[in-house]
Amino acid sequence: MIERYTRPAMGKIWSDEHRLREMLRVEEELLKAIAPEKGIPEAELKALRRLMDKSMLDAARRRESSAGHEVIGMLAAVAGELKKEAPKVDRYLHYGLTSSDVLDTATALQLRDAAGLLIEGWENVAGRLKTLARKHERTWMVGRTHGVHAEPITFGIKAAGWHSEAERNLRRLRRAVELISYGKISGAVGAFSQLPPEIEARVLDALGLRPEPVSTQVLPRDRHADYFHALVLSACAVERVALEIRHLQKTEILEVEEPFSEGQKGSSAMPHKRNPVLCENLCGLARLIRAHESAVTENCALWHERDISHSSNERVIFPDAHIALDFMLHRLSQVLDGLQVYPERMKKNLESSSGLVFSQKVLLKLIDAGLGRLEAYDLVQRNAMKTWKGAGPLRQTLGADPDVTKRLSAKELDACFSLEPYGASAREILKRGGCL
Amino acid sequence: MIERYTRPAMGKIWSDEHRLREMLRVEEELLKAIAPEKGIPEAELKALRRLMDKSMLDAARRRESSAGHEVIGMLAAVAGELKKEAPKVDRYLHYGLTSSDVLDTATALQLRDAAGLLIEGWENVAGRLKTLARKHERTWMVGRTHGVHAEPITFGIKAAGWHSEAERNLRRLRRAVELISYGKISGAVGAFSQLPPEIEARVLDALGLRPEPVSTQVLPRDRHADYFHALVLSACAVERVALEIRHLQKTEILEVEEPFSEGQKGSSAMPHKRNPVLCENLCGLARLIRAHESAVTENCALWHERDISHSSNERVIFPDAHIALDFMLHRLSQVLDGLQVYPERMKKNLESSSGLVFSQKVLLKLIDAGLGRLEAYDLVQRNAMKTWKGAGPLRQTLGADPDVTKRLSAKELDACFSLEPYGASAREILKRGGCL
Amino acid sequence: MIERYTRPAMGKIWSDEHRLREMLRVEEELLKAIAPEKGIPEAELKALRRLMDKSMLDAARRRESSAGHEVIGMLAAVAGELKKEAPKVDRYLHYGLTSSDVLDTATALQLRDAAGLLIEGWENVAGRLKTLARKHERTWMVGRTHGVHAEPITFGIKAAGWHSEAERNLRRLRRAVELISYGKISGAVGAFSQLPPEIEARVLDALGLRPEPVSTQVLPRDRHADYFHALVLSACAVERVALEIRHLQKTEILEVEEPFSEGQKGSSAMPHKRNPVLCENLCGLARLIRAHESAVTENCALWHERDISHSSNERVIFPDAHIALDFMLHRLSQVLDGLQVYPERMKKNLESSSGLVFSQKVLLKLIDAGLGRLEAYDLVQRNAMKTWKGAGPLRQTLGADPDVTKRLSAKELDACFSLEPYGASAREILKRGGCL
Amino acid sequence: MIERYTRPAMGKIWSDEHRLREMLRVEEELLKAIAPEKGIPEAELKALRRLMDKSMLDAARRRESSAGHEVIGMLAAVAGELKKEAPKVDRYLHYGLTSSDVLDTATALQLRDAAGLLIEGWENVAGRLKTLARKHERTWMVGRTHGVHAEPITFGIKAAGWHSEAERNLRRLRRAVELISYGKISGAVGAFSQLPPEIEARVLDALGLRPEPVSTQVLPRDRHADYFHALVLSACAVERVALEIRHLQKTEILEVEEPFSEGQKGSSAMPHKRNPVLCENLCGLARLIRAHESAVTENCALWHERDISHSSNERVIFPDAHIALDFMLHRLSQVLDGLQVYPERMKKNLESSSGLVFSQKVLLKLIDAGLGRLEAYDLVQRNAMKTWKGAGPLRQTLGADPDVTKRLSAKELDACFSLEPYGASAREILKRGGCL
Repeated sequence: MIERYTRPAMGKIWSDEHRLREMLRVEEELLKAIAPEKGIPEAELKALRRLMDKSMLDAARRRESSAGHEVIGMLAAVAGELKKEAPKVDRYLHYGLTSSDVLDTATALQLRDAAGLLIEGWENVAGRLKTLARKHERTWMVGRTHGVHAEPITFGIKAAGWHSEAERNLRRLRRAVELISYGKISGAVGAFSQLPPEIEARVLDALGLRPEPVSTQVLPRDRHADYFHALVLSACAVERVALEIRHLQKTEILEVEEPFSEGQKGSSAMPHKRNPVLCENLCGLARLIRAHESAVTENCALWHERDISHSSNERVIFPDAHIALDFMLHRLSQVLDGLQVYPERMKKNLESSSGLVFSQKVLLKLIDAGLGRLEAYDLVQRNAMKTWKGAGPLRQTLGADPDVTKRLSAKELDACFSLEPYGASAREILKRGGCL
Repeated sequence: MIERYTRPAMGKIWSDEHRLREMLRVEEELLKAIAPEKGIPEAELKALRRLMDKSMLDAARRRESSAGHEVIGMLAAVAGELKKEAPKVDRYLHYGLTSSDVLDTATALQLRDAAGLLIEGWENVAGRLKTLARKHERTWMVGRTHGVHAEPITFGIKAAGWHSEAERNLRRLRRAVELISYGKISGAVGAFSQLPPEIEARVLDALGLRPEPVSTQVLPRDRHADYFHALVLSACAVERVALEIRHLQKTEILEVEEPFSEGQKGSSAMPHKRNPVLCENLCGLARLIRAHESAVTENCALWHERDISHSSNERVIFPDAHIALDFMLHRLSQVLDGLQVYPERMKKNLESSSGLVFSQKVLLKLIDAGLGRLEAYDLVQRNAMKTWKGAGPLRQTLGADPDVTKRLSAKELDACFSLEPYGASAREILKRGGCL
Repeated sequence: MIERYTRPAMGKIWSDEHRLREMLRVEEELLKAIAPEKGIPEAELKALRRLMDKSMLDAARRRESSAGHEVIGMLAAVAGELKKEAPKVDRYLHYGLTSSDVLDTATALQLRDAAGLLIEGWENVAGRLKTLARKHERTWMVGRTHGVHAEPITFGIKAAGWHSEAERNLRRLRRAVELISYGKISGAVGAFSQLPPEIEARVLDALGLRPEPVSTQVLPRDRHADYFHALVLSACAVERVALEIRHLQKTEILEVEEPFSEGQKGSSAMPHKRNPVLCENLCGLARLIRAHESAVTENCALWHERDISHSSNERVIFPDAHIALDFMLHRLSQVLDGLQVYPERMKKNLESSSGLVFSQKVLLKLIDAGLGRLEAYDLVQRNAMKTWKGAGPLRQTLGADPDVTKRLSAKELDACFSLEPYGASAREILKRGGCL
Repeated sequence: MIERYTRPAMGKIWSDEHRLREMLRVEEELLKAIAPEKGIPEAELKALRRLMDKSMLDAARRRESSAGHEVIGMLAAVAGELKKEAPKVDRYLHYGLTSSDVLDTATALQLRDAAGLLIEGWENVAGRLKTLARKHERTWMVGRTHGVHAEPITFGIKAAGWHSEAERNLRRLRRAVELISYGKISGAVGAFSQLPPEIEARVLDALGLRPEPVSTQVLPRDRHADYFHALVLSACAVERVALEIRHLQKTEILEVEEPFSEGQKGSSAMPHKRNPVLCENLCGLARLIRAHESAVTENCALWHERDISHSSNERVIFPDAHIALDFMLHRLSQVLDGLQVYPERMKKNLESSSGLVFSQKVLLKLIDAGLGRLEAYDLVQRNAMKTWKGAGPLRQTLGADPDVTKRLSAKELDACFSLEPYGASAREILKRGGCL
């Protein structure tokens, strides 16, 4: 992933350096697990640990390029260093393992850590959404369907919907961590040909992972594809909020604005511009993460006990999706922190449709008054269209229509045009959305 | 979905007729819920029920084409019929509802039923996989990585891996049913403007659904995208089994064959052909379902309180994905029922690589005997390459290499070439994979 | 594809009936090509033709279900009928062919015909776009970037952009027809094992197709994936227009509206609603066609001389994508036919941003007057922000800023606020976009 | 893109440094174009050129982070440097431009250069494929359909098919260069509000680009999506070759092997392994590039005169897809350079199916001898199944079947089992595939 979108903590997890270290952690645990049987002294294990604290990346890379194999490169780099000081560790390093025992188990560690950062990111976002929902529980605005004014809502209700989706994503990510906290030390074809399942149990236990029930040479990739979908849905949820802010920031609507810092410039050409570029950027990144999914699901059906076709794209996609999503969550928190909300403009927009947003209330009152649904619908629609074309507020066109007035009194009509009933459930909705 | 891939039970769930009926069920429950307050007599509700037992599709379609709106078409069709017999039902039909209250809630019913069939389908597949795994617990074959002989496994271990993935998919689908068993009766913008949450509770309870915590005009689409991924992963799992059978049926390998019925013809040109066409077909359908996912995830970020852009593709994708997967699971069961397994050929292939599959055992024995890993590796690789190039079985080339024989006795070497250790864990693997 | 989105002419091309007929056309041409050598009498060929004029679908289906092979089913159905009347045709039917010779060549005929309808569809759309562009060459509106007012344009310029993309799509589709007008009569593995290339030349020539330079058992699928992309880009182009109309129909903007027929109802709940549902529907269908692409590109890399994994998804995707796009183009034409354009509202919106849209002109004038770019930018931005916050039109805030007025006279400033320069190139743009 | 897959020449094109330089080239050409009118002296332009020869990246980045805008960051960095030495350049830099005039035009330059490298890459691959095809024009092997032996071909025919697809990809890339060699200097909303089309013509002409007929603030993204598909199809074509090599390297088949260098190690566990890892890697990268496409096509429908949602994913996808494909083409050339081809094994495999591969020839001879197609098919299939089940070569089972021998003499039967007719067209196929 490009530097521009890489936050340090997440970047570190996916660095080659860290990957190598996690791989060595797996090797270290294997050595510990077989130490009793193979008589590997404690002191030698300490020597390995000391070595691991240094950067070995360059050495490993050099070896890899001659062996044409990443894990063998790592082993060769380590082996060279330990021959004298820790000959048993040197000999038993990688004993009975296949590369994927190390790689897939190490990747599980990376994914778990990375998901942890994403959970933090969502918690930060969710906290802000909750605050927003509470603050605007009764901030009236128009609800829009099809981009067209529908009925009144409050901005708090909107934010509660975002919060509810954030909570779903937190649940998804927590479940995803469960899904991905699996490793394997089952050998070349998953059949424990060289090491018994007890060794696997010991190694994985030490790493806080569970053993894959049935692995091949690798962990089955449906697990990764299942995990990955939590990232995709997270990206889609960020996109949904960002898209909404972009809509609400359109010049004609302008009910909210994303933060615009001192010194910021919106356009190289037009000095007046304040553009929702942060949110647009989020929408674009969502497309990127969503796109990755087809490769991840194509990786599921590998040949026989595995082929390595998944590896090249996982090297790119796993880091990129996490880094991008981490960036997105952080940016969304920033946007929410500095979000400008304009309740007066919301109110003005709400009122601009001349009471049309109350049309359903009138419809139902007419039904209650004994009119058939279709007749009532036509009657309200007829007057709504007059209003739409500029004949004055709906209350007024209705009031001038004898087919209406013979059924509803002025007082009953007035009651249809009150905001209150539309917000009556706001408190409950916020509760249902986890905001209260 | 085309007829060729549509099984009747699944096809029925997605028929226009059934969709309409499920929509009317929602309307019916709404009427029951408001009956006490609105004074709708029991007899009128029965009249509605009688009407629902007849096909109303043609009438609804005719009305839809003039109203340009599916739900209004349905309402008009029903209304015409009930005016005399059940005037209150006629009037209060759809009272306080928005179309999506009906549509999304009805779709949840369809999805739940459809997922039920898929679960049955997977159970059928899983049962067959379990039988296969048990039967072949000790049927030796070569494990292949990168398409190249690696180490011995048993066919039962392979089947246990498939079974384990089948169990994961069953869990996914059951969770997916939970995910999708949500409805909404929250009105035009999700704010309960016309009906209070208690009505929603009553309606959904009667339908066995839970209320969406915060809806807009529609159920949030991340729910559907989350659900849908269970279908995609199911398709990928079927693909994995089908792909493997295709590989194992290659002329040079021929360890299994999919069923080939009496009278079947493999090729219009070549009378000798028996092709794994059923499995190829499954692989192609997996691509179809996988492809759908990008549309489903694009649907998540709708505008404001909803736009209807998701609807047109959901009309196609929801039925098609379920119908295709239902077909796939059924076909996979058929393939497994008639699967020809050739243990002798498996054994012959396993033996064909002249003992190379035992190379790691020798490597580890050399290490145990005191040799460094890299030296041991080079020593075995050297002899393996001789064998590879035709110089005789690995046991023999190793036996002729003094660098080997000075470290390992003939007896020790012989022990490396025994199949037994490779199958020692088969029983446990089958247990872990849920097959015992 | 579901009936709702299927127009008859396109549906017919993809009917099983038509597919069968096109397959038989290939068989017929093969018989003609080998007639001289095999001594097949003209009268027998006529008998075949007569048979082809009847529907054979049911018979073919019955045979297919026992043979498990579509082409063999067809051959069996035909053969039964011809044995007496045309024994030589009966015997030489499919002589030297492999099923894919027939299927792929017939599919090329279907694709070519289907693309022809799409080209018509685009021509209809393009004509309407051209008319729209001409009519509104000088209809002023605000150009928006990031959803925020930028600088003035005319509606004609916008339409010219759509027209220019329509022309690109017409070029793409015409090229796609070239790409797909290839067949093959090269036999089971593409090596002309039973029939020489001259026979292929004769058959394809009669069908108006070109021979694939090197085929396997099938036409190479990159050709279909290349072709298919023209459909995807067409769908994206329709989506672009539809998305724009949806934006322009938002209540606060309301510069255009898609047609809303007499008797149409926008919402089952809210009688006042006029929603851009036609355009939303188009956006949703674009996602469907776009999604298909991953399957189509996955089909490219088949095994060896072919596997049949592509076939199952092509049976669904090829018809569905064409039918959906055909529907989309037709619907877009309808939308354009009835498009309501509101120039006064466009003008009002343009003026609503208090002259901010002219900010760049002032910036450049200040630079011309000798100010550095950054200084000029800050100077205009400073005043733009005042205007943005309600301090009056930009002309006025600038006029009150001595840093501006010492550099630009009132007359020079006034000149910056004229619409004329923004439309000066409209005519040329329309020309460049193919509208004049 | 990660370093592992980045070749220097392609990496350089996509470096931030190079991007900045290309952007400055556009600015420089604009200055040259307006120099006469604005009186910018030649000496000042030279000062700019000198400045451009230095790295400005750090300065630009620093400024960007405060302005929150990439292009403004660049302008600020440059402006600081030029104030004294070239005051007019300083002032007129970016005069009348919008950022996207610079960015999109610069990206076109990058894309054109990058495509140039890809064309070189394909030419290298195509050259090797041609050589391979010629060398093996008459190297017999079995053609396989459905993974099952079908009829004989030559390895040269297979390579000719790959070459023919390579030629199609070269044509696609050359067309793609045409498609993408467009720029725009049409200003903030594409309406030439500040600079007339003649300036655009001058700038683009100097850069070797053509003017977009109708742009918005940006070049229309269907152009990029169209271009991008050439990359996707290229990746699919590489995948096809790589997949085939993987198949042919399976232990039981082993007709070819990708190069395996001295010192290379196939497995960390199994010293005997030689795995087709290079080709597997290519298949995985193809999935990556294919996956990108959904984002690229989602970018087409931007809002109004543009939103910037495309930008964030283009920053990642454009470099990554080019870098990955460049790597793939280079790696494929290496694979082909060192490809081990084993004609004897090919022959052995071909013969292993006991003559079944000649079944169609017998079928047709029986038809020629007067038998009906279905009868002939059943007759050959009957004997083929005997052979398949081990009853001896097809020639023999047929020879023992009186239903055959009464129709075909021993000599006629013998003639059916000759390889010659299967290769008769090899020369012509190679010609058609551009190899001769």
